Amino acid sequence: MTHLPDWLQQQAAAAPDRPALIAADTIWSFGALAGAADRLARTLREAGAQAGAPVALLAANRPVFAAAVHAVARCGVTLAPLNTRLNPHELRWQLEDLGAQVLLHDAAYHDLAAASTPAGVRLLALDESPPPPPSSPPLLLNLAAIHTLIYTSGTTGTPKAAQLSYGNHWWSAVGSALNLGVHADDRWLAVLPLFHVGGLAILMRSVIYGMPVVLHERFDPAAINRAIDEQGVTIISVVATMLQRMLAERGDRPYPAQLRCVLLGGGPAPRHLLEACAARNIPVVQTYGMTETASQAVTLAPADALRKLGSAGRPLLPLQVRIDAGHTAPEQVGEIYVRGPLVTAGYRNRPVPLHDGWLATGDLGYLDSEGYLYVVDRRDDLIISGGENVYPAEVEAVLQSHPAVQEAGVVGLADAAWGMVPVAFVAAEPDHALDQQELIAFARNRLAGYKVPRQIVVLAEALPRTAAGKLRRNLLRRRLTELLPLDNTGEVDK
Amino acid sequence: MTHLPDWLQQQAAAAPDRPALIAADTIWSFGALAGAADRLARTLREAGAQAGAPVALLAANRPVFAAAVHAVARCGVTLAPLNTRLNPHELRWQLEDLGAQVLLHDAAYHDLAAASTPAGVRLLALDESPPPPPSSPPLLLNLAAIHTLIYTSGTTGTPKAAQLSYGNHWWSAVGSALNLGVHADDRWLAVLPLFHVGGLAILMRSVIYGMPVVLHERFDPAAINRAIDEQGVTIISVVATMLQRMLAERGDRPYPAQLRCVLLGGGPAPRHLLEACAARNIPVVQTYGMTETASQAVTLAPADALRKLGSAGRPLLPLQVRIDAGHTAPEQVGEIYVRGPLVTAGYRNRPVPLHDGWLATGDLGYLDSEGYLYVVDRRDDLIISGGENVYPAEVEAVLQSHPAVQEAGVVGLADAAWGMVPVAFVAAEPDHALDQQELIAFARNRLAGYKVPRQIVVLAEALPRTAAGKLRRNLLRRRLTELLPLDNTGEVDK
Repeated sequence: MTHLPDWLQQQAAAAPDRPALIAADTIWSFGALAGAADRLARTLREAGAQAGAPVALLAANRPVFAAAVHAVARCGVTLAPLNTRLNPHELRWQLEDLGAQVLLHDAAYHDLAAASTPAGVRLLALDESPPPPPSSPPLLLNLAAIHTLIYTSGTTGTPKAAQLSYGNHWWSAVGSALNLGVHADDRWLAVLPLFHVGGLAILMRSVIYGMPVVLHERFDPAAINRAIDEQGVTIISVVATMLQRMLAERGDRPYPAQLRCVLLGGGPAPRHLLEACAARNIPVVQTYGMTETASQAVTLAPADALRKLGSAGRPLLPLQVRIDAGHTAPEQVGEIYVRGPLVTAGYRNRPVPLHDGWLATGDLGYLDSEGYLYVVDRRDDLIISGGENVYPAEVEAVLQSHPAVQEAGVVGLADAAWGMVPVAFVAAEPDHALDQQELIAFARNRLAGYKVPRQIVVLAEALPRTAAGKLRRNLLRRRLTELLPLDNTGEVDK
Repeated sequence: MTHLPDWLQQQAAAAPDRPALIAADTIWSFGALAGAADRLARTLREAGAQAGAPVALLAANRPVFAAAVHAVARCGVTLAPLNTRLNPHELRWQLEDLGAQVLLHDAAYHDLAAASTPAGVRLLALDESPPPPPSSPPLLLNLAAIHTLIYTSGTTGTPKAAQLSYGNHWWSAVGSALNLGVHADDRWLAVLPLFHVGGLAILMRSVIYGMPVVLHERFDPAAINRAIDEQGVTIISVVATMLQRMLAERGDRPYPAQLRCVLLGGGPAPRHLLEACAARNIPVVQTYGMTETASQAVTLAPADALRKLGSAGRPLLPLQVRIDAGHTAPEQVGEIYVRGPLVTAGYRNRPVPLHDGWLATGDLGYLDSEGYLYVVDRRDDLIISGGENVYPAEVEAVLQSHPAVQEAGVVGLADAAWGMVPVAFVAAEPDHALDQQELIAFARNRLAGYKVPRQIVVLAEALPRTAAGKLRRNLLRRRLTELLPLDNTGEVDK
């Protein structure tokens, strides 16, 4: 059982005045962050938070969120950061599922917290005033202890709280460091929500590397581009739609050379986006990860971005990846399994999902002969049509390569003859009209007949996505049942 | 029990053609190194090496040394790299103490190996020819398993084989990475002997970071300086005498900007050396470490080099340091204890020296109010004179600040009145004469009376040091007994 000196205390002792969190209106040094964590831990103890009990958190991407992340180590509770985009009904379900006794919230989310709180849960407002000096005695972190409970974003199914240990976070940060490097002048921009693992992991890297984080509360492409220019940002974590909007806002102006890594997650990136980045010398590192691996699991280096187009890359050093395809031939699609010290030990109050340490990701993919992973789709989203596998992501990529299509989402529709058939939802590029028949013909020229959508539904609004940018095909499927019976506009022969 | 995919296999799969080892006459890629390790593992299995058994190694700083380091993981043996400067009598003692059945050697050390081998130990010559492609199936490393047995350099006492696990090496490499950073263009120059932990740790970092190592077989300041200029060296590990000779050879020519870290170990550095480096913008990182911590334990950043002169710096992130002074007041000298995942679990066939995970280092030191460690001396070298502590290193530093003194070593001499009194051995700078009385007067102006050496013995040759550059005061003490009765030339009143 490995113990490490508290990471934040280490950084606060080595460089108390070094910036830890750079927000729009305030900067907290590592010393201030340690002081804020100590202050909040005292508040939690006074509120009667029990060691081992979950403390829920509803807060924006602000320094005080990080105070909560590090306060929990100081009073032995676990932190359950909640998704601020959920409605009170969903939040109440999670608070009850957790058995949380305390809900921490910042000023911005007071009303949502109050509306979501079941009886018996104590609401505690976070203290956003300047922190006092650190006051805790030296602290050890047990890497086996649970630090965080995060409800998986759940593109399908009921939310489950993945348990992430201090060790999961540590190994994730170290795996990322060994892959992306660590520079003394690094500053990581966090605009992904901190309640998701992609944002939270940046806060963990901050205290493990001694690295400042530039915090943005919401995605504003102009503000992000300005921060990169003016605040020495060297790394930024984004999803594809963010990067697209950043490039659109940026125009032809190059990014400064110190921006050494654009970590791109949240699903496969469109080819045109990668080509645009390559043409502008933007160092995109694609990554495949999940809550259950404490963030990044597999990444693709910029040098491979186009050579291995569509690949998520190679596993981080501490991680093992295998494909369960019933056999071991390369390039065979099967469910992706992961194992290693950055993988969760399981979900709270649910059966342990590991077999000999291996976690089934629910994603389908394959490894090429060089060991690069290709994620083809969610297992639950797989459409089996006449015995053939149709991967929605493949069909979506073809539809999205049409100049008039901004986004596409493909789901299966029950069909008496074929079992299931693919149906597509699309949103048009601004100022483009979509002709469904033409789009089907376009797809037919590029895909086997059984993969061509039977129907194309044009949406006036954007496709539903999780806060982490993942397409929510379960909502599309629900929508599909609402639309039934479909008209025959887009029907095609197989 | 944590398992990781074999580090070398990971690097060989990710970048098979990337240089791993750059020697004077050959370059081995990570693919070649993996092939060489696989080949040697086959040879060892064919030679009947038993899983868990120690395999000894006698080899120069050449690529084939690294092949041995990684071969042992492939056949489950442990590696005991032997000091090539020992004589056959000393080597035979270690081989018998180990119970080694196999002694690997390279061409350069065939004769020494043959002369040192007890009956029943099989000699195996390392294959230094170009390696075949890798052939081993995917391998997992158990971090709890013992990788290396290293006889501690033993400035005092009987040699003991410290056991270093895969995990000790891993945590050491990660601790160093988080402290010094990891850059994609890093190249680490290894001229410290690979049979010592300071050299061996560079080979471990190489496969954990995917970083080329520039290997030098012997210390030639001109060759080192040329390698820095011409081979893109970014980090070099040295001891003070090496750095002094490099600067002397270099003259006024600045080092290229890519040289970002000169890791300086092997004992406290003289002030004039640190000042010379600061004046030339040479980024010296002082470090205190030992075999038992798998290399670096505490380091001092260049920014603190002069502000915290004499300090070894702050602990690496995974390490805890405490001073056992019988009380907890800051700046109190006591024995230095270390704890953490990079600390050895113990010595082979010796009692476990840990208490609740804490290892007594045998060194004396103190922590200042900011948590910086000052190592004052070896506990065994402490001279207690009339109830006062005399730290030899302090007296040596004063003597060495005299312009005519190149080196000084101070040991205790039994004394009826005072218990012990300090006696100094000194070597003169070239073309300088040493006047013992003047040197004693010089010391008396700078030290309390009880610290002033009673005698000064001028040596015509260099002071005895270990291969890692540490002063061997035990040999000076032995010399002192041989010199008795001393003449009275240098005697002083207290």
